[in-house]
Amino acid sequence: MAAPLNVGMIGFGNIGAGVLRALESNSKLVDERVPHPIRVVRIADIDTTTKRNAPYDPAILSADTDGLLADPAVHVALELTGTIGPAREFIERALQAGKHVVTANKALIAQHGTDLLRLAVKNKVCFLFEAAVGGGIPLIRTLHQGLAANDIQAVRGIINGTANYILSRMTDEGVDFAAVLADAQRLGYAEPDPTFDVEGHDTAHKLAILATLCFNQDIRFDDIHREGIVRVSAVDIAYAKQVGYTIKLLGIAKKNDDGSVEARVHPTLLPADSRLASVNGVFNAVRIDGNLTGSVILSGRGAGPEPTSSAILSDLMTLASGKAEGGLRREMRLSIPTDPKRIRPMAELRTRYYVRLGLRDVAGALAQVLTVLGSKGVSIESMNQPGGEDKGHAHVLIVTHEAQEACVQESLREVQKLEINRAEPFLLRIEDMG
Amino acid sequence: MAAPLNVGMIGFGNIGAGVLRALESNSKLVDERVPHPIRVVRIADIDTTTKRNAPYDPAILSADTDGLLADPAVHVALELTGTIGPAREFIERALQAGKHVVTANKALIAQHGTDLLRLAVKNKVCFLFEAAVGGGIPLIRTLHQGLAANDIQAVRGIINGTANYILSRMTDEGVDFAAVLADAQRLGYAEPDPTFDVEGHDTAHKLAILATLCFNQDIRFDDIHREGIVRVSAVDIAYAKQVGYTIKLLGIAKKNDDGSVEARVHPTLLPADSRLASVNGVFNAVRIDGNLTGSVILSGRGAGPEPTSSAILSDLMTLASGKAEGGLRREMRLSIPTDPKRIRPMAELRTRYYVRLGLRDVAGALAQVLTVLGSKGVSIESMNQPGGEDKGHAHVLIVTHEAQEACVQESLREVQKLEINRAEPFLLRIEDMG
Repeated sequence: MAAPLNVGMIGFGNIGAGVLRALESNSKLVDERVPHPIRVVRIADIDTTTKRNAPYDPAILSADTDGLLADPAVHVALELTGTIGPAREFIERALQAGKHVVTANKALIAQHGTDLLRLAVKNKVCFLFEAAVGGGIPLIRTLHQGLAANDIQAVRGIINGTANYILSRMTDEGVDFAAVLADAQRLGYAEPDPTFDVEGHDTAHKLAILATLCFNQDIRFDDIHREGIVRVSAVDIAYAKQVGYTIKLLGIAKKNDDGSVEARVHPTLLPADSRLASVNGVFNAVRIDGNLTGSVILSGRGAGPEPTSSAILSDLMTLASGKAEGGLRREMRLSIPTDPKRIRPMAELRTRYYVRLGLRDVAGALAQVLTVLGSKGVSIESMNQPGGEDKGHAHVLIVTHEAQEACVQESLREVQKLEINRAEPFLLRIEDMG
Repeated sequence: MAAPLNVGMIGFGNIGAGVLRALESNSKLVDERVPHPIRVVRIADIDTTTKRNAPYDPAILSADTDGLLADPAVHVALELTGTIGPAREFIERALQAGKHVVTANKALIAQHGTDLLRLAVKNKVCFLFEAAVGGGIPLIRTLHQGLAANDIQAVRGIINGTANYILSRMTDEGVDFAAVLADAQRLGYAEPDPTFDVEGHDTAHKLAILATLCFNQDIRFDDIHREGIVRVSAVDIAYAKQVGYTIKLLGIAKKNDDGSVEARVHPTLLPADSRLASVNGVFNAVRIDGNLTGSVILSGRGAGPEPTSSAILSDLMTLASGKAEGGLRREMRLSIPTDPKRIRPMAELRTRYYVRLGLRDVAGALAQVLTVLGSKGVSIESMNQPGGEDKGHAHVLIVTHEAQEACVQESLREVQKLEINRAEPFLLRIEDMG
């Protein structure tokens, strides 16, 4: 029998337990499909006493991360701590010790991925993170292999299951954010502190990774404009539906003709008959537009121990299949962005907008608003007063023609100064997606 | 500069022209992404005079296929003849001459793929066919790489754009098959002889390839039960919609608990809110259910020179990236099915059925039908007389509970013997998809 690929797992939570279960349940086919069997030989976690729902020999579990990292019998460090600082240190030390590293740590990669990739190449080992984006959807390998010949023009995704679950239920049930969030928390679909999911942090982490791979620029979390779904209301969803759109939290990154990249996360109006609009609940979906293949969409479960294990095992199997020869070296090299980073400022974005205003219900109010918008070059496609009333003001809902972000923002600041204005204007962007 | 990977192209039609255009338009990024530049050095086609819409040196085009196959400077034979017999001979000779082969020839692979793969392995070269299924959707590489750790339980796809276009328009416009077909032919979306697409041959070719890769059994075109969309009528689509379903031509292959595989192509009622149901027009989509990742759907353009070139170039780039090391050898080995073939006979299928009957409109007619179905153990979920009338008979539309195919077929043969029967019963299968 061929020598095994020995894995040392750092961090033993839900995902780690899922990996051990998957290695056991699928051991026959995994062993058949790769020449070197995959064995988890050490596990390091500060908690060595909690019983995990996974098959493992207790003797391999200890709190000794240093020992794991120093052990020459460990070929691959599987980092699953869910931390940033400690994870970074563990990964750096593993790479420097000549070990391959596999991780699902999107927050870390969105901030330090390029540095870690460079360190991996320098040490002639691999740093793989298929599980970091889209859970069980094989996005990264697909970009590097199946879509390798394409000049990627855009990547757009519903990549946070919690936010998508909340928006899906708001859409289906016509209720407001707070009510659905409370219920989602009760059901375990949202964390007690939901900020990370509903404010778009998680989506931005994943978008940073995708945009870096698609556009060959070192795009990090901080480069991404970010708005969450907290201010989206049932009235917005209902009005969007009336005009043929569905609201989704989208991560959007595009390469412009001048080579600059726009990268943004915000609730977005999508055509209701588009393929992304029908992705509901906890599903994730990513649309990749290549200049040869056109638009390709991959969808599936974006989280959970089993889908994540599928991605982690695909990385481990790639390592076990050819000891990092051939395609994998290409993958590593291609993961390191080489073009200078050029982020297009958000103010220069051109798109169509949806705007909700709260105005005093008097004659001439709409004319005043239109005058302000017109003075900034923002022209209107439709305007609607659905008759709803909120704390003494009337909702006015506007859809604009394509306009520049800076002009729209400036015109809304002007609207806020009008005597008739009664609420902070709320803006959403429309993505028509050709 | 590294030595180029020299490609000899056999067959110079629309797809070949697309490959040459793609190699030119994307040459910079392709050269950056692989260590060996890809060069088409010879083209063989019996037609050497027609001017193609592609950049090429006329001096490399000849009718001399023998010369191309004998040329030691050609490393890869790219077979794009669209034939069966001649293509098979060219591919066998190329493999025997130690050349890698890349092809988009689904009909050939669905019948002889396993034999050709064995020949390739014997000659230590690669036989790749990413373009054979799903055009620009990277399905084969995804199965082998990103989903490698999964036990695949089912694969289901909308994989013929022509049939999907026709059914989509029948659904949107409420018109019958013949009218849409005529218009599709006029617009160039359907061939003058549409049999191959509308009778499910093409879908069965692609399903044979997918099922072989998913289930590790040598499943060929002839193993697949096949029904086309010709008999689907507007009334079926309308009634399906009433009860919450959309009709699509689906290729379905599943592995049963006993290890047998069911493989079938037929028009299918899908839940209208399922992700596959919203795949319209010329788009293809394939859903793969793995035991770890759950259901993953890949969708995109299934045909056309540009999407097909994307897939062909991904194969060529894989060859150019590491000269068939690492992951690619695993891919080749995994493509050859090793389990004995066990096809579950269609008669043993268990599913839910939709049945359209044409009955004489007399009291007691429905009771007679229900008695027949009941006697064969087929129980009814719903029964409906929409009031439509066709050549003097009344439509009766039935949805059954789960039943066995043999029992349903037998009961319909009994119904046909009833005096009240006025038309050949028409049956469709329902796929609920969990």
